[in-house]
This record gives sequence, structure tokens and C-alpha cells, in this order.
Amino acid sequence: MIKKLRIMTPGPTPVPVDVLLEGAKETLYHRNPKFKKMLAAASEGLKKVFRTNGHVFILASSGTGAMETAVANTISPGDKVVTVVGGKFGERWAELCRAYGANMHEINIEWGDYLRVEQIEKALKENPDTKVVFTTLSETSTGVVNDIKAVAEIVKNANAILVVDAVSGLIAEPLEMDKWGVDIAVAGSQKAFMMPPGLAFVAVSSEKAWKCIEEAKSPRYYFDLRAYKNKYTDTPYTGAVNLVYQLNKSLEMIESETLEMVWKRHAIFANAMRRGIQALGLELFAKKPGNVLTAVKVPNDIDGLEFLKVSREEYGMIFSGGQAQLKGKIFRVSNLGYVDRLDMVSAIATIEMTLNKMGKHVPIGSGVRAVEESLLEADKDESFS
Amino acid sequence: MIKKLRIMTPGPTPVPVDVLLEGAKETLYHRNPKFKKMLAAASEGLKKVFRTNGHVFILASSGTGAMETAVANTISPGDKVVTVVGGKFGERWAELCRAYGANMHEINIEWGDYLRVEQIEKALKENPDTKVVFTTLSETSTGVVNDIKAVAEIVKNANAILVVDAVSGLIAEPLEMDKWGVDIAVAGSQKAFMMPPGLAFVAVSSEKAWKCIEEAKSPRYYFDLRAYKNKYTDTPYTGAVNLVYQLNKSLEMIESETLEMVWKRHAIFANAMRRGIQALGLELFAKKPGNVLTAVKVPNDIDGLEFLKVSREEYGMIFSGGQAQLKGKIFRVSNLGYVDRLDMVSAIATIEMTLNKMGKHVPIGSGVRAVEESLLEADKDESFS
Repeated sequence: MIKKLRIMTPGPTPVPVDVLLEGAKETLYHRNPKFKKMLAAASEGLKKVFRTNGHVFILASSGTGAMETAVANTISPGDKVVTVVGGKFGERWAELCRAYGANMHEINIEWGDYLRVEQIEKALKENPDTKVVFTTLSETSTGVVNDIKAVAEIVKNANAILVVDAVSGLIAEPLEMDKWGVDIAVAGSQKAFMMPPGLAFVAVSSEKAWKCIEEAKSPRYYFDLRAYKNKYTDTPYTGAVNLVYQLNKSLEMIESETLEMVWKRHAIFANAMRRGIQALGLELFAKKPGNVLTAVKVPNDIDGLEFLKVSREEYGMIFSGGQAQLKGKIFRVSNLGYVDRLDMVSAIATIEMTLNKMGKHVPIGSGVRAVEESLLEADKDESFS
Repeated sequence: MIKKLRIMTPGPTPVPVDVLLEGAKETLYHRNPKFKKMLAAASEGLKKVFRTNGHVFILASSGTGAMETAVANTISPGDKVVTVVGGKFGERWAELCRAYGANMHEINIEWGDYLRVEQIEKALKENPDTKVVFTTLSETSTGVVNDIKAVAEIVKNANAILVVDAVSGLIAEPLEMDKWGVDIAVAGSQKAFMMPPGLAFVAVSSEKAWKCIEEAKSPRYYFDLRAYKNKYTDTPYTGAVNLVYQLNKSLEMIESETLEMVWKRHAIFANAMRRGIQALGLELFAKKPGNVLTAVKVPNDIDGLEFLKVSREEYGMIFSGGQAQLKGKIFRVSNLGYVDRLDMVSAIATIEMTLNKMGKHVPIGSGVRAVEESLLEADKDESFS
């Protein structure tokens, strides 16, 4: 039985053919002037999506490499840091900071809940020596999106810099680095960039951040941002040539759709999926769900891992499960990146059919109806076209 | 707004990535021994899908080229032929036969209706000098599938040969050349073969057909089957090298799914679409719809051409319209070739949303529900997996 690959995970995300084909072009020498021009173009394009006039560096690494870059370049052993831990990726900031010997202050949030501005305020008041605040735009493990604009407002007035994990959030959710005052943000290629994995990005927007980077005493080499700044817009070490071709194509596609429209598309699709899920009588997991993905509580009478298996094996549809303590308890439907309206319809139809196949008789067609109605309503919104 | 290409026309049909990639491989010299082996393998594979132990020839042409081959090789000017005309492609047999100076006997069937065996019986009784009967397995313009097995039963006992246009029908609908006694059948690559256009196939199964080919006096050169037979399994003129790579990949995929399963898949999908269409209160066009495509009457209050435009521009979904006198009056939803269950869901969802967008308020979600229910029921059929 034919089953097409339908990947609706929050990274990797579906890659358009035009981006894939860039990966099949001849690999240039990484110091070829033609490739240098491509790197320069990519760096310019990245500034637009990070909304910064600062530097955006291109690393051959996964998103975690970019996170490590942010940690290794901003703290020295013993430095006080505030980390916001409300899921797997907030936890990763804490693990990285511990690995680099930071003096930890963790704001722990129940997974699925979101960061309150007061929590940051309190943490900074109690820890006036905080050097860096590490937080998350879109917490991929729970679907929660945090109010980074409000957080930046607080951190701006403290003697600290703000580092944001925007790995799954960038391009899908508004992030205004310069306007809001986000000092450093990191992202990865396999998310809303609609590219294969392999590249990560580190944006540095402020003098405050550069001062921190110059003073940091953590050992670092491959991830040393001073080396990247010296060579900018070239890379200090071998650039991932074909991935850079793909990055330029992706940036071109985003620019042609316009970043504002891409944000809006993610909002429309996530809203449609939330309505579809609720129409089926299922529950949303996140208290403040963002527009990157929809985390859904697995009904009590259903095996969450089996659900993923059946939807994959029967329909070729790849959803993500829960991570760590959420394993088997939630499933996550991403609308990140190269996803269109009919992908949203296919996702909810898969959920309906899979649950019915597993003996959970949700009303077939109700989820799809809610998704279609939501999409049709969005079309009537004149600001959307 | 992202719109993926979703081609649900009865040719070209969606092409799997593995088949597309064969088209990107290095082009061999067409007399290279390696390529000759590929041609031999393709010819063997083609016999299996045509269900014949006879010859199957590979032409660099469209399906119409294969139809012309069948005409030019079987008749001489003035020969009596019977053509079955119940749509655009039955009409094409008649046009070809007229172009080659045949003595015409046309069985005209209202478009959308199907051939009755008695019509063939009567035609052959009234025209005992008939040399060739030209008919159509799947009439792509109307969605009708004819009972070729019953037709063959009649023609077998007359002094004529039976030629079948299986261009859109082969692989999607059962056709048993040897078992039923179909003398010549033709097909094209851009249909259930899930390949790009560019290749056509002519299968010759019987001694009766070869006798006819040897005796025919119509002028022919590029399409002369005697030249193809002489070189078999090589091609007399330059073979379409990369398309042959793609053909072998396609045949491999069909063999791995099994031809019987592919027939069944087409039956399940077409049945699901018919149920979805009826659940929306729309009418089927064909009196005996086949499993290749579903032809739907455009509701009176809707502009049929506008419907195609909106579904294409808003959802990236490509349906076919009506041809000739049916232009604007029907639309056709194909489930031919590389189509999966979620493509069927996407197609019916597109119809629902497009009609609503155009002010025709069909019940959103009802069509999808019917399609999903039909697919779930098919899964319960134990002979289907």
C-alpha cells in the first residue's frame, strides 16, 4: 500500500524540492570566491529573519551546538546564570550551564506551563549578580511559547544579557531581536527554515553581548565566536557548502512569502489544529500553546506509543511523541515550515482514522470539519491572502 | 501562502521521488550493453503488467503515438474497422482510422455511458468483413470502464482482432491480455506507471495480430512494429534512455506492491471518492464509473472552469475539467498511480472548501467523513493489507 512520507514533526520538517535540489548541486571549494559571496548573502538574509543589524554566524552543527556556543562564549566558571526550565530544551540550557561550571539559578516551571514575567523579575532581584539569562522562545517539548518581549523588557534593566533559544521558534513566531533587546539568539536549519539538519545560527545583536563574549573564560575553539567574527562573513572552519546553497534558497522563499506572512501562516495553521483537536474531544497539553506545534494529551484509554506507530505505519504520517516524563502521554503535531493547508487536513484526518482504528471512536470528520472551517475563516480575514 | 503541487489528474500523475531520481542519473549511450540489459529487463517487466507472453514494445512517444502504431500496423486503406466512441479517446481511434483511410463503422455511445456487449455483437454481425475492433478499457474523458473481457469473448469468434486502448486503464484496472484474448493493447508512461510522460507501450499478444501486422499496407516508419520486432528487445531508433531507467524503477515498485494489490488499491480509492462525492450531494457523471478517476457533474450554480481555477490557485490541487462538449460541465478527480489515502482525503477536502469558497455551501466535513469511513472499512477487509 502506497504511503507517502508526511513528516509533521517539529524538526526535521518537510523540505521543498527547490531546496532539496540545491543539495544536489556541485560542491564548491569552501574558499572559492563564488561560495564566499553565497555566505555573505546568507548572512545578510539571516539578519532579516533574526530582525537584527548585528552579526549572524553560520555553524556546521545542530541546534545544540549553537546553544553550546551561546553558553561557552558568555560565561566563565562560577558565573551566576538564570535558566528557565519548562521542558526538555530549557533543561538543555541548564545542562550546558552546569557543564561549563556556572553558578545556577533555575526557574522551574511545570512542563506545559509558561514563564511568568514575575518569575524573571524575582530571580533577577534575588540574584543581582546574574550574568546571563537563558530562556526559550518555543519550548518544542511542550508546545509552549514564552513572552520574550516581556522578558527582554526586564532583563534590559538588569546587569545581565538575554540569550534566547529560538531553535524551533524562529520564523514561525515573531522575534524582534533589536527592537525587543534580545542579546543573543540561536536557531537551527531543520525547523522553519525548511532545510535538512546540519546548520545552526547564532545571532549576536548588542555591544553588551560582545563585551561578555570577550570577557568569558570558558574554554572553546570550534564554537569560539571571536574566530567567527574575525572571518565574518566567511566561516573560520570548513563551511557546510551545499547546506549554504539550501539556506540561500530557503531565505529567498521566506522573503518572497514575507516574514510577516510566514508568522501569520503558522498562527492560522496552529489555530486550525487546536480547533480540530478540540472538536474531536481531545485535550491540548500546553497552557499557552504557541504556533509551532500542537501538543495533545493522549486519551487515557489509548497507548501513546502505539498511536505514533499506527499513524506512521498505516498512513506514513510522522508525529512526535512526548519526551522524558511525557513519553507516551502526549503527541505533538507540528505545522512548522513547509506545510500547507492540505497537510493540516491530512494530519487531523490521520488522527481521526488512527484513533478509530485503535478502537477509540472519535467522531470521524469532525476534526477535519473544524480545521477546514478555521482555514476558511482565516481566508476571509482581509489582512491574509 | 505555501501551496504544494498536488496533481490528481489522470495523467500526468504524481511521480515518486525514487522514480524522479532515476531521471537525474547519467544518460548512457543507447547502444551501451548496460542499457540494452535495462531494455530487456523493462520488456520482461512490461509483459507482467500487460499479462501477456507476447511482445511489449517501448516507444519514445505519447500514448497517441502508441494508438497510431496500432492503427498503422493493422489496417490497409479501405479495411473495415469497428470503433467504439463513447468519449474523447474512443473518438481518437475513429480519427486515426479515418486518417489511415479505413472503412468506418462507429458504435456511438452517449458520453458517460458504457459499451454494451450486444452493440459489439450487432456490429460484427452486420459487418462480417471487420478486420479490427478498436475499443477503450478506461475512457479517461468520462471515467467509464468497459467490460473488455466480454468484448474479447465476442471478437475472438469473429474474423477480427481486438485492439484496446489501455492508456489510462493499464495497471489501475484488471486487463488480462492472454487470458481474455486481447490481441493488441497500448499504454502510456504518465498514468498508473507513475512516471513522467514520454514513453508509450504496444503489446502484441497473438499470431492473429502478427499476421495482420505483416499484411497491413498502411505507410509507416517510426511506428513500424516490424522494425521493433526485428530489434527486440532493443529499440530500432534512439531509446529514451532516462525514461527507461524510470520505467524499470516503476515496474520494480509495482512488482513489490503486487499488481493485484495495485488493482485493489485503485478500486478502494475510487470507491471512497465516489462515496465522498455523493455525501456532498454531488452527482457522479459516469453510468459505470471505473477505478481510474471519478467524474463529477458540476452543480448548476457553479462555474466549472472557475472551480478548477480556485482549487488550483488556493490549494495547489490540480483536477481535470471536462473535454470537448463536457468542458465546464464535469470535473475529474483521479486516483491513478502514486496516490495514497491522505491524497484522497486532501482531494475531497479541497472540493469541500473550494465549493464553499465559491458560495456553494456543501456540508463541510461530510465528504471527508465518507472517504475516511470508506477507507477504514476497506482496511477491515482481510484480503486487503
